Amino acid sequence: MSGAFTLAIDAMGGDRAPEIVLAGLDIAAVRHPGARFLLVGDEVKLSPLLHRYKRAAALCTVRHTPDMIAGDLKPTAALRMRKASMRIAIDAVAGGEAAGVVSAGNTGALLALAKIVIKTLPGIDRPAMAAIGPSGRGDVVMLDLGANVACDTRNLIEFAVMGDVFARTVLGLPSPTIGLLNVGSEELKGDDRLRAAADFLRASHLSSQFYGFVEGHDITAGTTDVVVTDGFTGNVALKTGEGALKLMGQMLRQVFNANVFSRIAYLLARPGLERLREWLDPRRYNGAVMLGLGGVVVKSHGGTDAQGFAHAVDVAMDMVVHRFNDGIRDGLSRIGSQQTATGRRNGSSEPDAASRADTEPRTAQG
Amino acid sequence: MSGAFTLAIDAMGGDRAPEIVLAGLDIAAVRHPGARFLLVGDEVKLSPLLHRYKRAAALCTVRHTPDMIAGDLKPTAALRMRKASMRIAIDAVAGGEAAGVVSAGNTGALLALAKIVIKTLPGIDRPAMAAIGPSGRGDVVMLDLGANVACDTRNLIEFAVMGDVFARTVLGLPSPTIGLLNVGSEELKGDDRLRAAADFLRASHLSSQFYGFVEGHDITAGTTDVVVTDGFTGNVALKTGEGALKLMGQMLRQVFNANVFSRIAYLLARPGLERLREWLDPRRYNGAVMLGLGGVVVKSHGGTDAQGFAHAVDVAMDMVVHRFNDGIRDGLSRIGSQQTATGRRNGSSEPDAASRADTEPRTAQG
Repeated sequence: MSGAFTLAIDAMGGDRAPEIVLAGLDIAAVRHPGARFLLVGDEVKLSPLLHRYKRAAALCTVRHTPDMIAGDLKPTAALRMRKASMRIAIDAVAGGEAAGVVSAGNTGALLALAKIVIKTLPGIDRPAMAAIGPSGRGDVVMLDLGANVACDTRNLIEFAVMGDVFARTVLGLPSPTIGLLNVGSEELKGDDRLRAAADFLRASHLSSQFYGFVEGHDITAGTTDVVVTDGFTGNVALKTGEGALKLMGQMLRQVFNANVFSRIAYLLARPGLERLREWLDPRRYNGAVMLGLGGVVVKSHGGTDAQGFAHAVDVAMDMVVHRFNDGIRDGLSRIGSQQTATGRRNGSSEPDAASRADTEPRTAQG
Repeated sequence: MSGAFTLAIDAMGGDRAPEIVLAGLDIAAVRHPGARFLLVGDEVKLSPLLHRYKRAAALCTVRHTPDMIAGDLKPTAALRMRKASMRIAIDAVAGGEAAGVVSAGNTGALLALAKIVIKTLPGIDRPAMAAIGPSGRGDVVMLDLGANVACDTRNLIEFAVMGDVFARTVLGLPSPTIGLLNVGSEELKGDDRLRAAADFLRASHLSSQFYGFVEGHDITAGTTDVVVTDGFTGNVALKTGEGALKLMGQMLRQVFNANVFSRIAYLLARPGLERLREWLDPRRYNGAVMLGLGGVVVKSHGGTDAQGFAHAVDVAMDMVVHRFNDGIRDGLSRIGSQQTATGRRNGSSEPDAASRADTEPRTAQG
């Protein structure tokens, strides 16, 4: 790792910014001593924090701006705020000063700005948002989590390619398995869009990793390492799963607080319960990533704490250090320039995936 | 309740049929002494069971058929099996011999047969599958759970009407709140289809019950009593939520089995943990219902036990006794014949809901 590994940090994004941001960088600084942070925000507010968080300060360069994008600002309005901390941080990635950006600010604004300013990678139709979550068989990558409410066959194929590289990069899996989320596992389930994507993947360089269709319960079962879906379904599935775990946590608290016996029970089982709580800790999974852009873009949860923000920085550094985008370029070249060419020639965003699959032999470029 | 309350029972559907079916009816017989069951299946297999389950036998009339629809048979093939137990049970509803049918057999076949043989209610474009699940604020009704992979504005509006009546009928709520599942709660979130459905509902007779958009985590939070969504999203959300609860259950078992202290902890907290387990027991929520058909159609989980099957019978009896379909007819008349007329005249299944909303004053027929 060298000083070239610079992340632009939106110091002003998130519920308790900039305090949490600096506290998070202070933790991240220990884990990434070779990193550099371009800290964008209000100098008046940042100065005292830099005095307090000295490990962070040692890696930070401050770029002053008094402007910031509010959490409820519409993306169209955010695009006009050229001096906002988030914008300047994103500009730094577009200009090559930083390899990636981390922000806990307005998600819609971050996605819109990143798409317009940093731009998508050549060959990618639409960037996707991915995150990591817990399962019974290790961590699982899911995408898209809401960047695209509607997705076509081509988008789903690209998400599979990006999910594969993300799981290799951040989870360190040599050959992650990939599932396409559907309402049943049989080949005939779902709509044409899903079936065409599955047909294409079965014949692509990902064929040995492609498991086929998976269902909602397969996400937490860990049936595959990567779960690919459209942004609407992925967003609902993510929040539903989180909601179910939260409900169970609340109920357990009630059980253990019920009487003196249950309170003793809690104390006796505490080490295991604490491990379970840590394992499911949302902070451990903080850092949704926008994949398919010309730089690394990580969104931290707006309500997270310093540990959570530090984890988002970890994810960004993993992607920078392991040259995530080189992996994406390689994956895209393997699914063939045909895909993009066919789609554009037809003037359609949904190329005939099945026919592409026929002209793309299993061993192509393998 | 009188002898007129007859349910046709597919005795041969499900993993452990007909044993579980008879055992389930034996439990249900105690709760519904006024019910009558038209038991359709193989007499040779049913006779010894009727001797064993005498409370069930007292309410049963057997209709013999040796044929049954296998769990993996395609719906198109199932439609040709005119002597199958499921088909004869459905025929009994279509012919007016029974008010409803309960089957633990092939879901796709049941849905296809019910739609074709029993037919949809006048004014309903597509039937939906609904079920009840647990939340932090009481039971929640969700629909569609997979009957319709793609849904338009009109379908979503009809699902809201049916979900309202279902929650009144089965949960006994006088004025259930209704949410439309989306990727965010702001009015601008989602696609045109969702926004048009929301606009329509805000101006309909359901306006005071309509909460607006809800997100995945709102399902288990119990933000609304009814959650309306398309069949693809609903199916994924249901299975994802179940999967998350199952994962947590497995993890808890590991925690309590870890050592002698945790085993003692389990014993101390056992009453509360048992209550939690019972509360989340899938058998308590067994019985997915196909709404919008000319009779009551309840699908029991294929792998459930006698308690679960009895619960599916409970749901069917609730709907029969409380004249569920009369409620649907009333709800449909309140959202106006305009909706159906507009949709059909345009030759489109997605009428302009916003303009309909304008011509449908809040107080119409209220």
